Amino acid sequence: MHKICIIGLGLLGGSIGKECLEKKLSKKVIGFGRNHDSLKKALQLQLVHEISDDFNNIHDADLVIIATPVKQIELVLKQIKPFLSKSTLITDVGSTKTNIINSVKNILGAESKNFIGSHPIAGSEKNGPEAAQNNLFNKKNIIITPHKLNTESSIKKIEDFWKQLNGNTIIMSPENHDEIFSTVSHLPHALAISFMSMINKKENREELLNFAASGFRDFTRIAASSPEMWRDIFIDNKEACLKDLKSYIEQLKEFENALEDETTLFDFIHNGSDLRKNWDE
Amino acid sequence: MHKICIIGLGLLGGSIGKECLEKKLSKKVIGFGRNHDSLKKALQLQLVHEISDDFNNIHDADLVIIATPVKQIELVLKQIKPFLSKSTLITDVGSTKTNIINSVKNILGAESKNFIGSHPIAGSEKNGPEAAQNNLFNKKNIIITPHKLNTESSIKKIEDFWKQLNGNTIIMSPENHDEIFSTVSHLPHALAISFMSMINKKENREELLNFAASGFRDFTRIAASSPEMWRDIFIDNKEACLKDLKSYIEQLKEFENALEDETTLFDFIHNGSDLRKNWDE
Repeated sequence: MHKICIIGLGLLGGSIGKECLEKKLSKKVIGFGRNHDSLKKALQLQLVHEISDDFNNIHDADLVIIATPVKQIELVLKQIKPFLSKSTLITDVGSTKTNIINSVKNILGAESKNFIGSHPIAGSEKNGPEAAQNNLFNKKNIIITPHKLNTESSIKKIEDFWKQLNGNTIIMSPENHDEIFSTVSHLPHALAISFMSMINKKENREELLNFAASGFRDFTRIAASSPEMWRDIFIDNKEACLKDLKSYIEQLKEFENALEDETTLFDFIHNGSDLRKNWDE
Repeated sequence: MHKICIIGLGLLGGSIGKECLEKKLSKKVIGFGRNHDSLKKALQLQLVHEISDDFNNIHDADLVIIATPVKQIELVLKQIKPFLSKSTLITDVGSTKTNIINSVKNILGAESKNFIGSHPIAGSEKNGPEAAQNNLFNKKNIIITPHKLNTESSIKKIEDFWKQLNGNTIIMSPENHDEIFSTVSHLPHALAISFMSMINKKENREELLNFAASGFRDFTRIAASSPEMWRDIFIDNKEACLKDLKSYIEQLKEFENALEDETTLFDFIHNGSDLRKNWDE
């Protein structure tokens, strides 16, 4: 490729840039972002060839990757729309897909044919350009969620891009994506965050935290993720998240009943435990 | 010491034995247990000097460590009671304390002065003698929960034993112990188990598990723990666990409201996230 533009140089955008540079996937990789300090840091860390705050620079890009938090994607699309050429493909790395695709259609109209949504299942509780790393996408699932206006060849180009980062691409509808990730990702985040909020309210929270050990550490790791990013994800995937939360509360009430009753408790625990033991990442 | 008897050679009992042998803390370390195959395995793995099914062997022990699941402690106490000498100290490694101390008082009467409860905050989702490891207790908190009949010198002996395994001993009442560990340990286990049970009920559970990633992995790790052990812990600490579950369900409802409302969602997430980021194990 001649030019790749990455908007947002946090963990995901930064790691994409880093790998594009190392693998020489594009003659030029330009980074854009709201935060000038982060941009400068990204340049220092050699995550991109150049940084810019002028969207004129994207007019001849082969690929624009929007790697901002999901709620900013709409604003970014409005900002870059005047500078998009007909041959520029656009993708994102957002953890929700249906709302994003709807925004894209509203904002870009017929030109939304050049936008193909992506969600790399790769991340960490860390963020910012300092968190960028090599091989972040290696063997990781990359969900690609085409919509009706996308052409086969555009979809293939986006797939090929992720395959060059050693990702394992999977095609799925935005709706199916959002339901699945509500359950396996957004719900656990909501649960870990709520657990930490509960601890936060306790008068003896310092004592509690002193006695927390490795089970607590792993269970709550995802609660340390970026509050801004997760607020946006929850709001963007609100319907599926609320449905899963309700279903989970029912599950907790079933646990409560099993604990009161005692006779069914073993089976309840065993069912969950067995499924986890047999799961391989 | 002359003789240490360990009843139950799983992860904790086995690891204690292994370290007693390597550090030569006792001339003889004898392992007891229900499961003959596990006992033989423990002997092969050199976790103990000898194995036995005859409690006559404990009459001259300096220390008896009951390392069975918590619900079996009562039965074990009844079985060993006729063979206990006045100079034999007894401890356990149970994750709950109040109920265990009450059972001890009922079964041993005045002789319960020789029982000092312990809870090493060390473990893993693995179990069985194969899971036994060196340094399992190194720098880990070991909660010791004395009761009124215990003498200062007996408590000190139990403390010294754990210190020889490099544990960091802490004295606490059984009731305080149970409340703290309900919140920081038993509740997260209940939540992770309930989450896996919810997945287990879904028709598309195979698809869900295919897309589960590192956040899911860490969040659910503790769900893979022994169902027998955890059933017993939950039942033994039922009151505190039910209280914490109710409080957590309230917390989830608060999250639901914040998500519906959107304006308070950031603060809710931020409070939890911040506390976790500033926690150091």
